[in-house]
Amino acid sequence: MNDAFSPPPGLLPAGLMDVLPPAAEREAALVEALMEGFARHGYERVKPPLLEFEDGLLAGSGAAVSEQIFRLMDPVSQRMMGLRADTTPQVSRIAATRLGAQPRPLRLCYEGPVLRVRGSELAPARQLAQAGIELIGGAAPEADAEVALVAAEALARVGVTGITLDITLPRMAQALLEAAGLEDAVARRLIRALDRKDAAAVATLARDAGPVAALLPPLLAAAGPAEGALAVLRGLDLPEAARAIAENAALVIAAIAARAPALRVTLDPIEFRGFRYHVGVAFTIYGPGATGEMARGGRYQSANDEPATGMTLYPDAVLRAAPKPASRPRCFLPIGTAPAVGEGLRRQGFATIAALSAADAPAALRCSHVWDGTAPVPVTEESSV
Amino acid sequence: MNDAFSPPPGLLPAGLMDVLPPAAEREAALVEALMEGFARHGYERVKPPLLEFEDGLLAGSGAAVSEQIFRLMDPVSQRMMGLRADTTPQVSRIAATRLGAQPRPLRLCYEGPVLRVRGSELAPARQLAQAGIELIGGAAPEADAEVALVAAEALARVGVTGITLDITLPRMAQALLEAAGLEDAVARRLIRALDRKDAAAVATLARDAGPVAALLPPLLAAAGPAEGALAVLRGLDLPEAARAIAENAALVIAAIAARAPALRVTLDPIEFRGFRYHVGVAFTIYGPGATGEMARGGRYQSANDEPATGMTLYPDAVLRAAPKPASRPRCFLPIGTAPAVGEGLRRQGFATIAALSAADAPAALRCSHVWDGTAPVPVTEESSV
Repeated sequence: MNDAFSPPPGLLPAGLMDVLPPAAEREAALVEALMEGFARHGYERVKPPLLEFEDGLLAGSGAAVSEQIFRLMDPVSQRMMGLRADTTPQVSRIAATRLGAQPRPLRLCYEGPVLRVRGSELAPARQLAQAGIELIGGAAPEADAEVALVAAEALARVGVTGITLDITLPRMAQALLEAAGLEDAVARRLIRALDRKDAAAVATLARDAGPVAALLPPLLAAAGPAEGALAVLRGLDLPEAARAIAENAALVIAAIAARAPALRVTLDPIEFRGFRYHVGVAFTIYGPGATGEMARGGRYQSANDEPATGMTLYPDAVLRAAPKPASRPRCFLPIGTAPAVGEGLRRQGFATIAALSAADAPAALRCSHVWDGTAPVPVTEESSV
Repeated sequence: MNDAFSPPPGLLPAGLMDVLPPAAEREAALVEALMEGFARHGYERVKPPLLEFEDGLLAGSGAAVSEQIFRLMDPVSQRMMGLRADTTPQVSRIAATRLGAQPRPLRLCYEGPVLRVRGSELAPARQLAQAGIELIGGAAPEADAEVALVAAEALARVGVTGITLDITLPRMAQALLEAAGLEDAVARRLIRALDRKDAAAVATLARDAGPVAALLPPLLAAAGPAEGALAVLRGLDLPEAARAIAENAALVIAAIAARAPALRVTLDPIEFRGFRYHVGVAFTIYGPGATGEMARGGRYQSANDEPATGMTLYPDAVLRAAPKPASRPRCFLPIGTAPAVGEGLRRQGFATIAALSAADAPAALRCSHVWDGTAPVPVTEESSV
């Protein structure tokens, strides 16, 4: 219905954008620095295709992003394909199939864009960069600690320090509600109140719902620095499944504290929003100040029910929090400059901008320096022709 | 119709593939090395989205890849979008719109995947990596020489030397046939014969077709080292349009020879295949030996009819010709190894593989070294537990 009205040239669909200089180079350098951080801990890069059969993208954790997948028909196979909306399901598939015979734990990393059908009001982008790690086939709490610490170290490599690691236990609320043996209607109301973090409603609903439901208000209030939250968990008489979740969390947090005692770690034991396929600890990394969410991850079941844990970093968010690197000086080479001069300047870290015609001028081409025949001299208002 | 038969898990659509360790890391490092080569010559990175409105992808040079574009409906705008099958049209759009006010020449570079609906028998891949440069708003022969030389230098940076730069003049055959004033049927037969490089048929058809058509057989035979082909061109009585094309080619080749006298350059003046939107010189770079086509480019009209020239490198092909870098040594860290030990080893260039459980063993995890408490010692058959 809009076909008769052509958009102005250069208009892009909502949520899709061009990244221009110098942001595009900064983003690429940042992603490669994160990936180098992962590689230093033995995470090996895989690169799944942007498109694959829909079934592959929906398997396992992929179901959580099903409604976000752009679908299109493959004219070759006549089957539906999808553009990936998340990379973790693809890495799971690779681990289970082509790397199925490799000894575990398998450490893999990836980077690249994901696409989604709709943005949200707060996050309108429909093409997002991801850079992440997956540790597949390791069930130990040390594995969860490792992915959190490798992510934190990668962020530090690009200058993002002062982060907070938020840990949640997405199955805890469910474990308690199951053990509480509540009527469905009451359980649903409690879930809604927990989801809203409405402490008053939780307290009211839990008051006459038995001893297990009575644990919910103190657990809701326990959210905060990890040591304090763990102390609350230790002091409560948790049912068995909930106890196991709490003890695992304590081990993960202890492993993190042993290796990174200065890292700020919080624990919200009852929070479950946003982690639809996680089974143990779940992580969110917040940047310093109000820079927002930098990464998300945690424990999940990979393909073939292998235990797995991982972390996805969001380079766009990291970029906003990272210090800007110094830009490369640009040296103008007048017509006739010998090739060896340019080579030498490039080796020194200059970008060289060769004049191609007499009309080319250093200032217009945003050069910081100009080759005067013997040395690169800074461009001033007067020296620029 | 195939829906009832689910493919085995892990099966990917034809022409789409997972890149696994260590190839994925090699490819990424190679692309970044090429991009660094471009940046050193002042080419600034842009990153257009993978998806945009179909009209944008089809503008200008995009028409040449129209039938290769995957199309899908944007549920937000209700308009058709396409997955890019080539990046040059997007860079043209950026140059004409968001960077329309920047002084020329504008030097831009890009890297990333392109997707196409069908592969060919010889090139079955439907997701291809591209890394390229565009020089927009410069008409001088030195601009064409620059993109060829920057591409050659970028290839040398990743260890690909001994390349051949093949130059063709895609408009030359057309200029001659137009000037020859032939009957349509004869012109069509000549085009077909030239397309097949059928020298005997060209000679037969040209024999009685007048003085301009008589130029075709010697031009067809002139293909070879650039100096020889230029000498043939100089010796022929070319009609005006063809003369201008030949003189421009001579200037481009002279500019290349002045800066890179050792580069092997060939010229095939009558070849026109595969360059559907090029207007001046067109380039193909062949790797050493039988490693094939590494890059393509040349002069074209950018959006708003700006003169432009560029080069697209194919990282997959470059990777096959590039020497393999040494792999990173992997050092196993037994349980309880102090964090500072890992930090030190990573600084020395090791990837560290931390044991997460007692089951983890150095050889199974493909470690080259193990930390023995004081130093990284090579893993031997015996030392691996």
